[in-house]
Amino acid sequence: MNNYTAKFLLELSTDLIEAMGSRREDAHIVAHHLVEAQLAGHDSHGIVRLAQYYAHACEGKVDPRAEIEVVRESPTTALLDGHYTWGQVTAMRAVELGISKAQENGIAALSLRNCYHVGRVGVYPLAAAERGFIAQVHCNGHGVCRVAPWGGTEPRLATNPVAIAIPTRGEPLLVDITTSVVAEGKVRISKNAGKEIPDGWVLDAGGKPTTNPADLYEGGSLLPLGGREGHKGYGLSIIVDLLGGALSGAGCGKMTEKVGNGLFIQLTDPACFCDPEEFLDQVELFSEYLRSSPLKEGVEEILLPGEPEQRTAALRRREGIDIDDGTWSQVVELAGELGVEVKEAG
Amino acid sequence: MNNYTAKFLLELSTDLIEAMGSRREDAHIVAHHLVEAQLAGHDSHGIVRLAQYYAHACEGKVDPRAEIEVVRESPTTALLDGHYTWGQVTAMRAVELGISKAQENGIAALSLRNCYHVGRVGVYPLAAAERGFIAQVHCNGHGVCRVAPWGGTEPRLATNPVAIAIPTRGEPLLVDITTSVVAEGKVRISKNAGKEIPDGWVLDAGGKPTTNPADLYEGGSLLPLGGREGHKGYGLSIIVDLLGGALSGAGCGKMTEKVGNGLFIQLTDPACFCDPEEFLDQVELFSEYLRSSPLKEGVEEILLPGEPEQRTAALRRREGIDIDDGTWSQVVELAGELGVEVKEAG
Repeated sequence: MNNYTAKFLLELSTDLIEAMGSRREDAHIVAHHLVEAQLAGHDSHGIVRLAQYYAHACEGKVDPRAEIEVVRESPTTALLDGHYTWGQVTAMRAVELGISKAQENGIAALSLRNCYHVGRVGVYPLAAAERGFIAQVHCNGHGVCRVAPWGGTEPRLATNPVAIAIPTRGEPLLVDITTSVVAEGKVRISKNAGKEIPDGWVLDAGGKPTTNPADLYEGGSLLPLGGREGHKGYGLSIIVDLLGGALSGAGCGKMTEKVGNGLFIQLTDPACFCDPEEFLDQVELFSEYLRSSPLKEGVEEILLPGEPEQRTAALRRREGIDIDDGTWSQVVELAGELGVEVKEAG
Repeated sequence: MNNYTAKFLLELSTDLIEAMGSRREDAHIVAHHLVEAQLAGHDSHGIVRLAQYYAHACEGKVDPRAEIEVVRESPTTALLDGHYTWGQVTAMRAVELGISKAQENGIAALSLRNCYHVGRVGVYPLAAAERGFIAQVHCNGHGVCRVAPWGGTEPRLATNPVAIAIPTRGEPLLVDITTSVVAEGKVRISKNAGKEIPDGWVLDAGGKPTTNPADLYEGGSLLPLGGREGHKGYGLSIIVDLLGGALSGAGCGKMTEKVGNGLFIQLTDPACFCDPEEFLDQVELFSEYLRSSPLKEGVEEILLPGEPEQRTAALRRREGIDIDDGTWSQVVELAGELGVEVKEAG
């Protein structure tokens, strides 16, 4: 196991992405995203992605120097075409454009297509909520599907997350959830560790419940959120696909060959409806009200959405970020290939 | 059991609500809502509500003649105060105002407070989707709570539904779901029928799982959507409370004594982002793509969100609506009290 500071990983990742052909400022946006995901504990969306991103750059699935195009625009809306530059750069550009529109007009909605992997979706509503806006993001995945329609056996929907952030006087509240019962990464981790998965996550190719994670990769499917009430997660997943994929023209499910994310971003300035300070008061009072509920046996405290990640980030900022040997040797190998020097960790 | 046509029930309900002190046109909106809910199979939101509405009118919890006020307004947003007239009238007024704003400016957002029971929430996004708009509604319940914060035992959140409708060339797709595992009415029906409820719906007052529906009404709590992943339903419920209750000033959870719904309504014209006909094409193709998945054993077909209700409505329009004796005798008694003649069913 290796332990590095966020600052060290940010510099190294920026160098690596720049060496893949990116402008320095774009490389910084992508690297910052990966390191923030790693800090928050979402290691599957952290620097482990660098090798994959480079492979995709070589294959032309991502074009590190492509220019983002604003295809349609109104005072409150915009359609952006990422032309397959980095998804993080496209999505952050959309958030910035949305904030300027919402500052002027109170609300804004943005649609994104031809967008490479955007990474951890919660980052985008968080960025807007840190500037005082309520932000909702529906993010479809197209080209790769793991979730079957409710009652079906063949995967035709991605894990299609929804992420919503609400400003507070501290760090924003953040709900960042897949509409599948869990993210696919959790099944993969169990498979790699040779462990069973809980009942209720996966159906095998025949549509029967299974606790063997390998079944997902042999024609099986991931279940939608909700257990017996999985029609609810299924319904939400369809909404995400249509808002993210159909409005933008990115495509839905596996109806397109192109792999990527289609996004629909909505921003709301609370000042349209109330005094923003009173809104923050309400959020604070409501949070305290929820926290003060009597606890179930064995539960130490009630958490609010986003707090587990905030705590992991605080810990990792203090104590550094552990990177497993496999991931680290991949990064070192990539650096060799790209001619980037891996300096001594600070 | 009694069987009546929708037309008969609509006329009778309109007469009854008018006799409670309503303007005829408002009475018609509320009656239409109740009968449509009944047609769709949501009997708990149908004419069984008439007696409760009258009791609340007598207690002053609803003011049938109050005027709706537009408190704040911009070209794309509005805050409405219902002053506790019928919730259906307030919410339909907001939808109409929103549509006119979205027609002009592409998107619109509306916030509603001092809003009496709005009934079946899905009706409002449906009304906008029938006119070509994507519509999202977050509807909190305040004053009455059934759901405990994740890890807690005391109810501090209502069942807080989300309803989203997408236009199609036929009837809109409609996701209309509580963020609790099920609606409270399902537990009440089991209790009244003396039946056990499935594991995973309710915790007793001590926070232990229970299959006895009565436990919910003796200090227990309804679980959030998601089963083991109930933190997801809990997170969504908080979002609904803050969007519906905090933005509008209606209030969140049981932090207010006033019973009602706080709404946040968002409308989007697909034409902001794409050719609306191409959007409808995509929705159609995607629907067919989902339907055509191979089926699980025992499943006859894959349904899209909203289809079960559409089918129930078509059946009940053909064959009439069954009303159980208990509900019907309440209605007849109410008619006597209000001096409304119950004509022979047509």
